[in-house]
Amino acid sequence: MKLGIVFGGVSYEHEISIVSAIAMKDVIHTQLVYIFLDQNRDFYLIPTDIIKSKLFSSGEYKKCEKLTLEKGAFFTQKAFLSKSKKIEADLLLNMMHGGDGEDGVIASLLEFNNIKYIGPRKEACSVSFNKFLTKGYASSVNIKTIDYKYFTKNDEVKIDNFPVIIKPVRLGSSIGVSIVKSEKELSYALDVAFEFDDAILVEPFISGIKEYNLAGCKIDGDFEFSIIEEPQKADFLDFDKKYLDFARTSTALKADISDELATKIKDSFKSIYNTLFDGALIRCDFFVKDNEVYLNEINPVPGSMANYLFSDFDGVIKKLSNNLPNTRNIVINYEYVNKIQASKGK
Amino acid sequence: MKLGIVFGGVSYEHEISIVSAIAMKDVIHTQLVYIFLDQNRDFYLIPTDIIKSKLFSSGEYKKCEKLTLEKGAFFTQKAFLSKSKKIEADLLLNMMHGGDGEDGVIASLLEFNNIKYIGPRKEACSVSFNKFLTKGYASSVNIKTIDYKYFTKNDEVKIDNFPVIIKPVRLGSSIGVSIVKSEKELSYALDVAFEFDDAILVEPFISGIKEYNLAGCKIDGDFEFSIIEEPQKADFLDFDKKYLDFARTSTALKADISDELATKIKDSFKSIYNTLFDGALIRCDFFVKDNEVYLNEINPVPGSMANYLFSDFDGVIKKLSNNLPNTRNIVINYEYVNKIQASKGK
Repeated sequence: MKLGIVFGGVSYEHEISIVSAIAMKDVIHTQLVYIFLDQNRDFYLIPTDIIKSKLFSSGEYKKCEKLTLEKGAFFTQKAFLSKSKKIEADLLLNMMHGGDGEDGVIASLLEFNNIKYIGPRKEACSVSFNKFLTKGYASSVNIKTIDYKYFTKNDEVKIDNFPVIIKPVRLGSSIGVSIVKSEKELSYALDVAFEFDDAILVEPFISGIKEYNLAGCKIDGDFEFSIIEEPQKADFLDFDKKYLDFARTSTALKADISDELATKIKDSFKSIYNTLFDGALIRCDFFVKDNEVYLNEINPVPGSMANYLFSDFDGVIKKLSNNLPNTRNIVINYEYVNKIQASKGK
Repeated sequence: MKLGIVFGGVSYEHEISIVSAIAMKDVIHTQLVYIFLDQNRDFYLIPTDIIKSKLFSSGEYKKCEKLTLEKGAFFTQKAFLSKSKKIEADLLLNMMHGGDGEDGVIASLLEFNNIKYIGPRKEACSVSFNKFLTKGYASSVNIKTIDYKYFTKNDEVKIDNFPVIIKPVRLGSSIGVSIVKSEKELSYALDVAFEFDDAILVEPFISGIKEYNLAGCKIDGDFEFSIIEEPQKADFLDFDKKYLDFARTSTALKADISDELATKIKDSFKSIYNTLFDGALIRCDFFVKDNEVYLNEINPVPGSMANYLFSDFDGVIKKLSNNLPNTRNIVINYEYVNKIQASKGK
């Protein structure tokens, strides 16, 4: 199997996508082809043997071959007297976190060009990338989330009980997120959050709430789960700490919880995954309070693909590769146009 | 103003997109440039003076110039000894109904290529194209919808009370929708619905429920509304009847309802439009039962842009053209990669 890894993207999480993608070299045992999307939205073919984070920060990647996305594949560009060459890959793995990767852009581009890929489809992106839509979706599939208030720019934000956590609706990796302990910290936190988005969520901040992460995917109608991890955390992980997390390749420790709770968490994952996340390996982050499970967030392109949660990550990726959803074949036969023309006698 | 109209697309509603786009010639008084997406996902430049539905059903459009979508614009293709030419347009109007247009694909393609357009953004597409997500979204913004049950393929479908209406979650224009009056009609209706989608909604069919349509958009923070229409309807409009509806250019009649109800309907529209639909002119179809307003569906690319509901459609389109949401400028400076490299001493 030849697997193309698409990474980078115009996103606040561009850099963590790079370390996340590089981490795959150690955990997927197949031929990898690295395809980088830079901040100008140009694609580059990055040779696997020279890939390292400095290649990107130094701008050296620009010496690599530029690619264009066309029907069925990526191609090198036509140069003087030479033809464009198809980049052979059996399928792609979407490893762009945040914008372009988790917001549905790359899913649309790949779907439009009929390219097979592992990763969230458009709708799955919308309901996980936008935390407000996550709340509505979770409630539709009968999964609890923490209470929240939703505000858009220009709304008057009134908060009665502190502490609260303020989040821009769209970003991941804790960017723009603040814990606000009192009224006097509020206005600064709102400014920060609204700098990143025009809509925010405000939730009560529940100190010491238990957090559990579970990754998985659906293969042939059945779920393939990782272990459940209780992530190590400060009050909450900031971008620096999360950054390091994205390079993780060592196996995590299984959380010490009852079988009953583990089953509850897995059932919640199944409800969320539904059919909407078919084709993707996702990580769901849950809260547990009074033995009740709450969805915190859905990571449809988790950091380093949550490889560290699986005992056989390589095997899961390979099975998933053979179980991707099909696109529906739509036949356009101009039946209605012809009918109207016939009735007009034209 | 030079307005590019993008229409066609790989969709069950490909043909109605054609008649809908052609209708714009009569109602938008500015220079139009027609860009057609055919069933092979090739773009063509269709000269405005020769556009008619037969051009497409006959396949003659293939004699028109092929276009490629690149950064900032569509371009004609390079031919032997001739350069590719940029298609000049101030902005585009997305007039693809159903797949490609209303599901977020074209929104992603245009966003990726930094092209200004009137039409729903990616998330707006997801919550309106997928009727199950519409339910969850409506509930998040405190708008009622008709009760429903959600089933995916392989679920056991048990229904206690008939009649019900069965809908594939994704399609518009009544495709795959059936009214089921008794148990014995159920299995056929399920087969039909699941032929078009892997998830369906079942709702009670409420005969004689009042239906009202309202179109509008947000301009400079304020709403620009159409009249409220009570659409003429049979039990429900099937594809043939709706098809003719998409070519409508004559002004509709205002529904005879109280000011109080009109205000309720407009307020519901505002809640749904929120910030998610910024940049789009949408039509919301509401039900009214016992003086309560229920959202039926959101048409983010309504048939013939619901021009027939506006007294000054041309004016609204022109105002909206100048009030499109901005994309956020994301700066990538490799701050984190540099920090890690510094700490490694590399």
